[in-house]
Amino acid sequence: MDQKVAATEQPRYIKLNACDNVAIVVNDFGLPAGSRFACGLTLAAFVPQGHKTALVDIAEGAPILRYGEIIGHAASRIGAGEWVDEARIRMPDAPSLDALEIATAVPPQLPPLEGYTFEGFRNPDGSVGTRNILGISTSVQCVAGTLDYALKRIRAELLPRYPNVDDVVALTHAYGCGVAITAPEAIVPIRTLQNLALNPNFGGEVMVVGLGCEKLSPDRLLPEGVSEGIVRMQDEAFEGFGAIVDAIVAMADARLAVLDRRRRETCPAGDLVIGLQCGGSDAFSGVTANPAVGFAADLLVRAGATVMFSEVTEVRDAIQLLTRRAVNEDVGRALVREMAWYDAYLARGGADRSANTTPGNKKGGLANIVEKSLGSIVKSGSSPIAGVLAPGEKARSKGMLFAATPASDFICGTLQLASGMTLQVFTTGRGTPYGLAAAPVIKVATRSELARRWKDLIDFDAGRIATGDMTIEEAGWDLFRLILDVASGRTKPWSDRWGLFNALTLFNPAPVT
Amino acid sequence: MDQKVAATEQPRYIKLNACDNVAIVVNDFGLPAGSRFACGLTLAAFVPQGHKTALVDIAEGAPILRYGEIIGHAASRIGAGEWVDEARIRMPDAPSLDALEIATAVPPQLPPLEGYTFEGFRNPDGSVGTRNILGISTSVQCVAGTLDYALKRIRAELLPRYPNVDDVVALTHAYGCGVAITAPEAIVPIRTLQNLALNPNFGGEVMVVGLGCEKLSPDRLLPEGVSEGIVRMQDEAFEGFGAIVDAIVAMADARLAVLDRRRRETCPAGDLVIGLQCGGSDAFSGVTANPAVGFAADLLVRAGATVMFSEVTEVRDAIQLLTRRAVNEDVGRALVREMAWYDAYLARGGADRSANTTPGNKKGGLANIVEKSLGSIVKSGSSPIAGVLAPGEKARSKGMLFAATPASDFICGTLQLASGMTLQVFTTGRGTPYGLAAAPVIKVATRSELARRWKDLIDFDAGRIATGDMTIEEAGWDLFRLILDVASGRTKPWSDRWGLFNALTLFNPAPVT
Repeated sequence: MDQKVAATEQPRYIKLNACDNVAIVVNDFGLPAGSRFACGLTLAAFVPQGHKTALVDIAEGAPILRYGEIIGHAASRIGAGEWVDEARIRMPDAPSLDALEIATAVPPQLPPLEGYTFEGFRNPDGSVGTRNILGISTSVQCVAGTLDYALKRIRAELLPRYPNVDDVVALTHAYGCGVAITAPEAIVPIRTLQNLALNPNFGGEVMVVGLGCEKLSPDRLLPEGVSEGIVRMQDEAFEGFGAIVDAIVAMADARLAVLDRRRRETCPAGDLVIGLQCGGSDAFSGVTANPAVGFAADLLVRAGATVMFSEVTEVRDAIQLLTRRAVNEDVGRALVREMAWYDAYLARGGADRSANTTPGNKKGGLANIVEKSLGSIVKSGSSPIAGVLAPGEKARSKGMLFAATPASDFICGTLQLASGMTLQVFTTGRGTPYGLAAAPVIKVATRSELARRWKDLIDFDAGRIATGDMTIEEAGWDLFRLILDVASGRTKPWSDRWGLFNALTLFNPAPVT
Repeated sequence: MDQKVAATEQPRYIKLNACDNVAIVVNDFGLPAGSRFACGLTLAAFVPQGHKTALVDIAEGAPILRYGEIIGHAASRIGAGEWVDEARIRMPDAPSLDALEIATAVPPQLPPLEGYTFEGFRNPDGSVGTRNILGISTSVQCVAGTLDYALKRIRAELLPRYPNVDDVVALTHAYGCGVAITAPEAIVPIRTLQNLALNPNFGGEVMVVGLGCEKLSPDRLLPEGVSEGIVRMQDEAFEGFGAIVDAIVAMADARLAVLDRRRRETCPAGDLVIGLQCGGSDAFSGVTANPAVGFAADLLVRAGATVMFSEVTEVRDAIQLLTRRAVNEDVGRALVREMAWYDAYLARGGADRSANTTPGNKKGGLANIVEKSLGSIVKSGSSPIAGVLAPGEKARSKGMLFAATPASDFICGTLQLASGMTLQVFTTGRGTPYGLAAAPVIKVATRSELARRWKDLIDFDAGRIATGDMTIEEAGWDLFRLILDVASGRTKPWSDRWGLFNALTLFNPAPVT
């Protein structure tokens, strides 16, 4: 990275690749026309922070290069020092899925990293949780109000008696009835609910609250071979609401007693299942936070952990870079399969890849989905892509996996939890108070200004990479150590301290009825 | 209705129409083989409660008639007294939408009903609420955790100072970002959120909590001409989480002060906007609860109120009965338009109308969607169909409207709230603890056994119609009076007493990204 860093008031830009003909302005709040960089370039117009300026004259129709990749073509001539805003860039077509190179540039396996551990809750199935939570599954939204009511009693009457249990979480959702449950795509939400119940942070103590007449039969949410653990509200044995609530509380009590006997034990870092996500991205995402996360991801992979990156619509436009990294032909084809599925899903609804970018992304300097994607996939680090998960599938292998999910923060988080994630690292440029009840979330800011302003929401300031206060490598190691601390319960991220949790949100590509 | 009623232990069935060749068993828990009805018919097999027995021999391929309509054809010969279960009925095709009679049998306008009133909260725009609630809109799920946090403070610190305000409700949802916001069908969730904020139970005091970078710009949720009333979390003025929460609490405080000055006043029953819905239906739904609701609906229409029935997939198979009742050609065509839209929506997802019926419906005696639909539309009473609302559209006229919604209880409830509903009447056969935070819900049981067992969840026992303890007319009048009582705040339905509320659930037929 060719970084121009000087005193705070010195105009600074970041150029990422030797081939790039644009660079992004680093200084908080942007730079006025006439600002002169150390290299001699002078701005011809105001350029907001994170937005691009041309480093050289760019002819009409010529490629605009960032990350060494074409993010578009000049809609008209752009002079050196001008603001290369969204309107001046014609977006290229998405890479065709028919002619991708697969497994042609598989990175070498990174050297193993030994000796790093965390304090986790080991489960009977060998998985390890970072939290000791009772997760109560639900088969249908109809029971949500009742479970909320019971939850208040469980929190007030039972939890104080079980000090080793971190929390009780109701896995409520909008699915279960009023849905086309035999439609081809119904497998996605059903699999998600089944696998959510098995998240390692729930310690294998599954219980389900169901209604009785719903389409999604509650027993489908029990693990294979388990037949006990359901409270069905319509059971004729229940005389009224009080009896139903009593039954939920009693079933929770038995499970809490089991969970309370567990203790944290030292586990190798390879037992972690880490999800990576970004939300509210800006042009710094691919420069500061995502490279730091990518570096930490490489450390995790080297330590033998499972790491997932996601968000189909944010990798689709850089898929040619990922299929080359696929560890083998099967994995490469699975990547293509997930991209093709999503292309068709969007087309069916009259949308396309351009639907991804938000006003906030654009305000933050991201011209289009190509530029956003190039910054997004940096999170995946430099290891081979070892596997691909369809939405909500459980991870069963180690290394860097692509977990195919929508980019929607809350849907991606829900699906990564279903895939077995026990801790999430979330990068943000514009800022979001995102959090999950079922797993701790470390929020990484792309800019120091955000980290300062949201000092009680942001857990890690990767903006220090842009200001030159820290290298990517240093940030990556710090983040890796923070992940071990948070996984061990030694450090609480801000979302856990405030109790800020987003709703579980299922991905249901099938119709409702 | 040809009702055979005798002593409790006497075998009883209900035959609805002189043409019917099947009838449903009334007795709790069903009747064994050999049971002899007053008319002389003897059961040839066990028939569960609510399930059908053949009144005469039915030849293979012959029509099976209930409500005087064909609910299917005999898959094989069925003898008199046999159990006509689901497997013995071949479902007919759905009525074609191309050749429907429109406005050919418009019922006469019912005579006006004068002098009935309720105590409501009159709003500046002329609408009348049944509750005095502060509804806090959100533009994106990202803010949900923060708003929940602020809500705890508002409840603890502010509400006690404003005794005339009933509650504060967070209008949280899964929409707002990570969605294809320019897709053709995105209008549905956006319109729903816009109109939800205007529900008469919120008194016109709109405020919005937004993030700042989301696709659904918060100002789109403000009423036309209003520019103030948004807390944007990413606003640079907010130094940290505490400042954001303070801003939400302060904005709520100002609105609570306005709401607190309001008092209930006597309003004509014609100011009510009543939603009708059913969930967990059984074969009694169309015999007891829905006819009683239909009678009450006629009274409401006669009093000048707005009444909505809904659930496209539960009227689709009886649409030929509704288009005839359409008050004019436009309304009839709008009904057809909504049916056609839903047919295409289901087909796009690889589903069809058979996706509607649930295991609970079938256990309750409903063989298929045709039989379910015939029972469902009984709720609409006997007045002309005066208008049709697309999903989430605001009701602007009086009389019986068809508000096109999915049949999913929580989605239908959310859309009816967006259409301006201030009270919902919900009929249930299998039983559900359904409730809404934004409007009171009166739950009507189809069977006395359910009403007894769930004595603290069910508000009205329409099963007394089947046992002969009450006529449909008596039940309809009682329900009408109960609606006026609940609307006036004199009677609290069970869901309000326990605080059992389902989540707002948007209908988003467009893709997520």
